[in-house]
Amino acid sequence: MPKTMRAAVFAGPGRIQLREKPVPEVGPLDALVRVTTTTICGTDVHILRGEYPVAEGLTIGHEPVGVVERLGSAVKGYKEGQRVVAGAITPSGTSNACLCGFCSQDGAGTAHGWKPLGGWRFGNTIDGCQAEYVLVPDAMANLAPVPDGLADEQVLMCPDIMSTGFGGAESGGVRIGDTVAVFAQGPIGLCATAGARLMGATTVIGVERVPERMEAARGLGADHVVDFGREDPVEAVRRLTDGRGVDVAIEALGTQATFEASLRVLRPGGTLSSLGVYSSDLRIPLDAFAAGLGDHRIVTTLCPGGKERMRRLMAVIASGRVDLRPLVTHRFPLERIEEAYDLFANQRGGVLKVAITP
Amino acid sequence: MPKTMRAAVFAGPGRIQLREKPVPEVGPLDALVRVTTTTICGTDVHILRGEYPVAEGLTIGHEPVGVVERLGSAVKGYKEGQRVVAGAITPSGTSNACLCGFCSQDGAGTAHGWKPLGGWRFGNTIDGCQAEYVLVPDAMANLAPVPDGLADEQVLMCPDIMSTGFGGAESGGVRIGDTVAVFAQGPIGLCATAGARLMGATTVIGVERVPERMEAARGLGADHVVDFGREDPVEAVRRLTDGRGVDVAIEALGTQATFEASLRVLRPGGTLSSLGVYSSDLRIPLDAFAAGLGDHRIVTTLCPGGKERMRRLMAVIASGRVDLRPLVTHRFPLERIEEAYDLFANQRGGVLKVAITP
Amino acid sequence: MPKTMRAAVFAGPGRIQLREKPVPEVGPLDALVRVTTTTICGTDVHILRGEYPVAEGLTIGHEPVGVVERLGSAVKGYKEGQRVVAGAITPSGTSNACLCGFCSQDGAGTAHGWKPLGGWRFGNTIDGCQAEYVLVPDAMANLAPVPDGLADEQVLMCPDIMSTGFGGAESGGVRIGDTVAVFAQGPIGLCATAGARLMGATTVIGVERVPERMEAARGLGADHVVDFGREDPVEAVRRLTDGRGVDVAIEALGTQATFEASLRVLRPGGTLSSLGVYSSDLRIPLDAFAAGLGDHRIVTTLCPGGKERMRRLMAVIASGRVDLRPLVTHRFPLERIEEAYDLFANQRGGVLKVAITP
Amino acid sequence: MPKTMRAAVFAGPGRIQLREKPVPEVGPLDALVRVTTTTICGTDVHILRGEYPVAEGLTIGHEPVGVVERLGSAVKGYKEGQRVVAGAITPSGTSNACLCGFCSQDGAGTAHGWKPLGGWRFGNTIDGCQAEYVLVPDAMANLAPVPDGLADEQVLMCPDIMSTGFGGAESGGVRIGDTVAVFAQGPIGLCATAGARLMGATTVIGVERVPERMEAARGLGADHVVDFGREDPVEAVRRLTDGRGVDVAIEALGTQATFEASLRVLRPGGTLSSLGVYSSDLRIPLDAFAAGLGDHRIVTTLCPGGKERMRRLMAVIASGRVDLRPLVTHRFPLERIEEAYDLFANQRGGVLKVAITP
Repeated sequence: MPKTMRAAVFAGPGRIQLREKPVPEVGPLDALVRVTTTTICGTDVHILRGEYPVAEGLTIGHEPVGVVERLGSAVKGYKEGQRVVAGAITPSGTSNACLCGFCSQDGAGTAHGWKPLGGWRFGNTIDGCQAEYVLVPDAMANLAPVPDGLADEQVLMCPDIMSTGFGGAESGGVRIGDTVAVFAQGPIGLCATAGARLMGATTVIGVERVPERMEAARGLGADHVVDFGREDPVEAVRRLTDGRGVDVAIEALGTQATFEASLRVLRPGGTLSSLGVYSSDLRIPLDAFAAGLGDHRIVTTLCPGGKERMRRLMAVIASGRVDLRPLVTHRFPLERIEEAYDLFANQRGGVLKVAITP
Repeated sequence: MPKTMRAAVFAGPGRIQLREKPVPEVGPLDALVRVTTTTICGTDVHILRGEYPVAEGLTIGHEPVGVVERLGSAVKGYKEGQRVVAGAITPSGTSNACLCGFCSQDGAGTAHGWKPLGGWRFGNTIDGCQAEYVLVPDAMANLAPVPDGLADEQVLMCPDIMSTGFGGAESGGVRIGDTVAVFAQGPIGLCATAGARLMGATTVIGVERVPERMEAARGLGADHVVDFGREDPVEAVRRLTDGRGVDVAIEALGTQATFEASLRVLRPGGTLSSLGVYSSDLRIPLDAFAAGLGDHRIVTTLCPGGKERMRRLMAVIASGRVDLRPLVTHRFPLERIEEAYDLFANQRGGVLKVAITP
Repeated sequence: MPKTMRAAVFAGPGRIQLREKPVPEVGPLDALVRVTTTTICGTDVHILRGEYPVAEGLTIGHEPVGVVERLGSAVKGYKEGQRVVAGAITPSGTSNACLCGFCSQDGAGTAHGWKPLGGWRFGNTIDGCQAEYVLVPDAMANLAPVPDGLADEQVLMCPDIMSTGFGGAESGGVRIGDTVAVFAQGPIGLCATAGARLMGATTVIGVERVPERMEAARGLGADHVVDFGREDPVEAVRRLTDGRGVDVAIEALGTQATFEASLRVLRPGGTLSSLGVYSSDLRIPLDAFAAGLGDHRIVTTLCPGGKERMRRLMAVIASGRVDLRPLVTHRFPLERIEEAYDLFANQRGGVLKVAITP
Repeated sequence: MPKTMRAAVFAGPGRIQLREKPVPEVGPLDALVRVTTTTICGTDVHILRGEYPVAEGLTIGHEPVGVVERLGSAVKGYKEGQRVVAGAITPSGTSNACLCGFCSQDGAGTAHGWKPLGGWRFGNTIDGCQAEYVLVPDAMANLAPVPDGLADEQVLMCPDIMSTGFGGAESGGVRIGDTVAVFAQGPIGLCATAGARLMGATTVIGVERVPERMEAARGLGADHVVDFGREDPVEAVRRLTDGRGVDVAIEALGTQATFEASLRVLRPGGTLSSLGVYSSDLRIPLDAFAAGLGDHRIVTTLCPGGKERMRRLMAVIASGRVDLRPLVTHRFPLERIEEAYDLFANQRGGVLKVAITP
């Protein structure tokens, strides 16, 4: 094994750079994974732009597919050479938050065991996976073997996009016979659309404007796609539901406009399931909120992680219920990752997701 | 039975007046109840002030305790002379919303069966109970016999205050071992405090400034009462929870300040259970909301109604678990209801709730 | 409208007979529905055989599709000539059980408001729908308009088979990524299979022996079908799940063998969702139950009813998610219903369900 | 620190013996705890009698209160000298079962991550705590600091009895206003009684025959205690509930008689929450089960463990909501543990629980 590797690091606002770094040392609970495929997330673009602060020199990326290269001394149940994924969220499994079912808010190491976003470590508080190798912490909680027969690109969405998007449908409590609206059909919104359908929603309404994404929405299960460039989406959803509104609205963009529209299309007693990463305060309009008396619920979800989550998502892929390969629209070797960032951050070429291969 | 009765009606903004009205006709599904005790709610004050529009001449009031005077031709299972309460919310039981468990958003009579606040009829869309008689619609779904041995004032909070306050704890999903903060200790906040404790919260923190209400909070189960006039309540709650925050925060006032503070004291993954009736748009601060990534939930609850709810709440009273009589601080005959409104609306004399006896 | 009609009545053990009966009088809360299509249920066969006692002369049948002929004086929101279905379970909506979410155990008319199986009235405690007309009680809670474009046979399974089968998946709490085994692939088991898949199960295993039913199971979503005539189904399920067992097992027959096998294939912490109508005591083997320490759950479900349930199920059909027409294998006019009973009760000719047209 | 210690070991059926054993080596994830107080459980008596097989020479006991003596090299967040408890169930936190919320069925080390009762290790698969020292595995998931001011005996029930008993109420889904029956008022039944009351049950009915236990039941919150030696408990519960039955019945003994009675007292749609360790097959009577159509649920619970659970239970004690000290009726030094077993196994002297101090 080499002693150094290439890694895409945050080099200050506006700059993500390939650098040579040491291959990390493997602690007792860690696993060193050789990355075979990874991808870029919208969050990485926030980091690139300096909107979400991380340490200078940190390796970016939180969506690894790879092969176990070396296991920590206390890690049991895996073997070197095994193909694995790890979630974007890598819980310890042992904090109070984890033991209470809130792995994404893992407070391992804090006095009381809870920390906002604490389960998100890759490319945030520790080196991430846009590199030749990545160190997976708490490996026994996080390494999920890839089922035979699944290619890297088939499971590439599991660590984040699929887990988050499906999580939006799950947190929304979608039930058989529900009507669900999903605002924005980027990669996460598309997965929310697929997830809502997978849970038994009988009318799934996607809201989007970009033609390629509208088309992708139909392919992943939307019964209707509203072009918000052509008509008011709140009115359109009201019309499509004969005035009743939707049981669940999923916000998948992170803006005031989509948040507010999600609230406005809810039936009384409906649930707004919010997935977006917001960048400013939100406003809840009094009328849309029935002055607080509409039995509405607003739920937020940070990408669920851990190996059991990954196992379940890969089972969905293996079963053929959902095929997310169409989301991979572009491919780059790690050497050209700066070019990939440029394409992805500016949403050129109908890009949905890019596959990066070290 | 007399042909006319006295009733407190909305006579235009700022005026609630006692008038002589006909005793209502009893339809096949109705019950005519002779009111023995009723009370005034904060919502009635909103109506009085013209902030919540109702028809001129409508009888106000939605918290009836009384005696069955006459039963509709299709009403079975009750007998005249029976002591009963009916909830503030009087669901039909037969709308789509009701059959889906959302009785408060009952859309009986609408095309699709859902209507915001549709279950709230007394003193809103039909004549209420600040009168000598009140017509209870859909009587079979709504009349709940008062257990022997319970006085009117013991069950007077069941129709609204207790049902709403307890509902805040229930919707918040309070569990054994939880820490719960309740913002504002008016009648509903006090019931939320009692409800949180009744569900197994082990630390209940009331936030209030009025000494009588702080004292009442301690009496109903608060382990700590934070005087927000003396210290910042968010800091106080953080301190009392060793920095972890609360599992559930209950908003019981209806202002931006309490809504925001409720959000700020939550642990990651915590639930804000909102009971207040707001009068303007709400703002969700980005930091308090962890940019949408904190696995927070915001749930709202309109007073649960129907006879099964009333039965359960009266069972709580009958068991002695909670005694809400201390909430009745003043008593007035119906004749002096205008005086009662004046006292209650201006929160004079340490008033919590008034008992009105026709 | 005629004064008399033909109806299939229970004429003593072993005999269901067509008789001429008066067309029923319409009470204030009722609707008279002209039946256009109905079917025979396994429960009707129990009645035929005298295993489930009903009154001599009672009209049998609880799965009506038809047209509103006349509405009771207090019934609002419908019009004559409207195409409707009503569920096998016709809740009042107003009993304590209904208001608590247990419509099938509706105790309308009892002192406390709960009655085992109380929501099942058609062909049990009141005249059913294997007749030219049927009186639907509590019509406002029970009449569900058929969406335009759906034929009778498309919605014929909604009142019972589909509601029960889907209910098995719902009560089992099927989640995305679950593995589910369904024991027996008769009409209800087939709907449980479809329901489990619809809710996101990624491996659905049907257990059956009859070739036509095995084939139908594959068509409705089973990933694997185990022929229990050829191999031990418990071993087969263990093998298909690599020894882990299933998250949810659905029992859809009503025998000790299937109940026990369902328990044996569960993973620790799994749920046995029981749909069968048993005819003798059940035995829980100590080992299969982990001596009571396996965090197992056993849940039972009586067919959910009411118009909101029917609306949701018809929405599933209208969306094209599930097509249950293949379950209708035979068709008979009402005149030949005795012949239909003979075929169905003896499971001849590969029968799944029969359509009866008055 | 000494090299050897005294420990109570299983020395073959009928014999638990004090032996001298080496103080265990501390692995990287372990903590060595000096036991200050422990107790004997009914399960230990099963082991003593050879009814539940464990390895000859294994140290028995799974309810430790003690002081951290030494921490494994990878254990962070604790310090030596700290007072702690660990649950009877010591989950790894990292298995699939744990990450799915089923810590008690922890399958760490198995291929698929689930194992029946796998979370129970102390005195079952590894050395337990009826000894001077105990090695706590996966210490970061399991060590819970004892709040200042709580004595050993105050928290001695947390590891098992209180966690199990409360778990019975929690799994039963007890809600405000529920009526709950608890069959048998031994230590676990008493905690179930306290737990049901703590969650808001308004009528808690204990069933017992031993006068001291009946008295203890009243002290811990039972509203009624039925002496099943004097009257049929099913009839008594029916009478106390006016024929309706209970919402939740908790079985806390592990016999056919109590299991069956629990089922018979349920209202339709009620939940039987089973805590007992059974020793033979169970029978579900057809009538009590409404032939499978009563919407009944049967749920089982193995003692929840892990440090967050312990933290919550100790918070209940610290809040003063429940005082379980009265359950400690006898005290023995470790030297006399054989005598303690004799007393406890034969339920002499009104024993509920014994405190053992090494």
